[in-house]
Amino acid sequence: MTHLPPGAVLPSVDVVGRFPELARTLPDEAVVFADPKVLRSHPRVAKALRGRVVHRVPAGEESKTLEAVERFATKLVHVSRGATFVALGGGTVGDVVAVLAHLHRRGVRLVQVPSTLLAAVDSSIGGKGAVNVGPVKNALGVFHGAAETWLCDELFGTLTEAQRREGRLEAWKMVVTLDAATARRWLRRPPADEVLLREARDLKEAVVRTDPYEQKGVRVVLNFGHTFGHVFESLSGYRLRHGEAVGLGMLCALDLGVRLGVTAPSVAASIEAGLPMPRGARVTIATLLRGASTSTVGGLLAADKKGAPGQVRMVLLEELGRWRLVDVPAREWQACVKGPWRRA
Amino acid sequence: MTHLPPGAVLPSVDVVGRFPELARTLPDEAVVFADPKVLRSHPRVAKALRGRVVHRVPAGEESKTLEAVERFATKLVHVSRGATFVALGGGTVGDVVAVLAHLHRRGVRLVQVPSTLLAAVDSSIGGKGAVNVGPVKNALGVFHGAAETWLCDELFGTLTEAQRREGRLEAWKMVVTLDAATARRWLRRPPADEVLLREARDLKEAVVRTDPYEQKGVRVVLNFGHTFGHVFESLSGYRLRHGEAVGLGMLCALDLGVRLGVTAPSVAASIEAGLPMPRGARVTIATLLRGASTSTVGGLLAADKKGAPGQVRMVLLEELGRWRLVDVPAREWQACVKGPWRRA
Repeated sequence: MTHLPPGAVLPSVDVVGRFPELARTLPDEAVVFADPKVLRSHPRVAKALRGRVVHRVPAGEESKTLEAVERFATKLVHVSRGATFVALGGGTVGDVVAVLAHLHRRGVRLVQVPSTLLAAVDSSIGGKGAVNVGPVKNALGVFHGAAETWLCDELFGTLTEAQRREGRLEAWKMVVTLDAATARRWLRRPPADEVLLREARDLKEAVVRTDPYEQKGVRVVLNFGHTFGHVFESLSGYRLRHGEAVGLGMLCALDLGVRLGVTAPSVAASIEAGLPMPRGARVTIATLLRGASTSTVGGLLAADKKGAPGQVRMVLLEELGRWRLVDVPAREWQACVKGPWRRA
Repeated sequence: MTHLPPGAVLPSVDVVGRFPELARTLPDEAVVFADPKVLRSHPRVAKALRGRVVHRVPAGEESKTLEAVERFATKLVHVSRGATFVALGGGTVGDVVAVLAHLHRRGVRLVQVPSTLLAAVDSSIGGKGAVNVGPVKNALGVFHGAAETWLCDELFGTLTEAQRREGRLEAWKMVVTLDAATARRWLRRPPADEVLLREARDLKEAVVRTDPYEQKGVRVVLNFGHTFGHVFESLSGYRLRHGEAVGLGMLCALDLGVRLGVTAPSVAASIEAGLPMPRGARVTIATLLRGASTSTVGGLLAADKKGAPGQVRMVLLEELGRWRLVDVPAREWQACVKGPWRRA
């Protein structure tokens, strides 16, 4: 018989409902970690948590530190191993609470309650949590699967259009790389957010199920658009939203795919036309790149540390629903960075 | 098919040999974390590590902090997920390096090289690692099994008699609770340290195999002697060695077992006669308890947080090789603390 550790990454148990009803099912020894903004925007959620222990975790990379983990741990020394931790918020809240849930008494039960579309389609699935070490994002991390994920529609009601777009772009990333039929349907007609959420979640779930601990190179497909996405995030001083940066990164991955003969130009064009990007995406890319030398870009790509020196290992699209890991030679991405991407 | 996460606790692969020879088998991307005292005492070990990345981790609880984890992580940002971490030292070094190996890029390969008899028979088996949070020992931790454990006899050559005794006492703990035949043999004639090491390791291995993540209440047997052991460590201001405190704690557990009719007096007496305790153990117990009120002791027991309020949940011995988890009522341990244990 095989034993599984606390937080083993297993197929997600998704529970759909309104937060106050679901909160009633929590055991007595539950500790809630919530983005204070979510509590302010949703008085009914805050009310449902009255009488419970609620720790405030502000959204943002600043919360993802070992210092924050220690600060919370100090308040948790009397909380037993039988406790349930609840992470109510977006990706950064989910990330740091997953680390905390993994380390507290060597692992307690975790419930993820994503409050953004982005967290719902992406970070709340698959158990990855992490903290940053200085400027290095996610340098220390864990796999700690949620026992349950609560999908509470009302939480998404207060999202801005830009926040929704982030979630949509990560959803599109999954569909174009993993599911040709759904991608074609989405290209014909953009799905409603509820449909997009469910379909993208299912796709990510399937990937995670195949390779829960990233040991087989399957989960790597989820990095589509992330190689140059991370470059753009960094070049913008992290003012660019993650999902939007990934959208720009997908355009770059499609361009490189076409250039290397991996992606058919018609496929790339139809995806670019369908992606729910804000207007002027190409201008944003050009503006960000004009502020950086090619060697700065190279340094940022190297920090991503995939592939041999100079080369960049990237997920490229062969066609809708089919991808391949490609070592992109330096001259190829440099030609794009110096040429077409810098003009717009 | 079941997927196992990095650091899954699997049966230990023990490699017996001299350190310099074994060190040659390390891959290029190995990062060594070593107790500087071990390097100073063993010039050949230090020499065998020349040209390798070696981080110094002083033995002692002070090294078991998230701050230390972060300090090391800062130096490791360029180390890949394919790396091997080596923990060369005693229990505290093994503890903090296990945490680091678990968190670095969500888990890297770990080799434990215990430099003390205590670490060899106990902490290097079973994958438990932890750091302290303020005064709370092991408040945050991980399960991260070693891929290999190197047993290098020459490392034990420089141990003091007190250090050896610690290891022997933890070894006796396993034998008296888990293996009647071996315990009887040891009682007839104390084993050589090499024999003791091998036999105790095998016993602990078997317990860990049955319940690697402490989900079934089997690993709890390893706490024999630890309930009052922790009290004595604390009362001594942590000047008492852990193994020695556990030895004193075993005497208390035997006394309570006899008092409650769980342990036959003859069994308790023969173990007390056989345990390799320093002279005057009963005097040490009395001295430590005389400096503390019964409610101080109660507070320390409660911090161990096992059992209902007032009660203390302890492993007691039924006979050699047979144990039972017992909720000891407050009046029983209080009677001992106020009476016989305080006199000596």
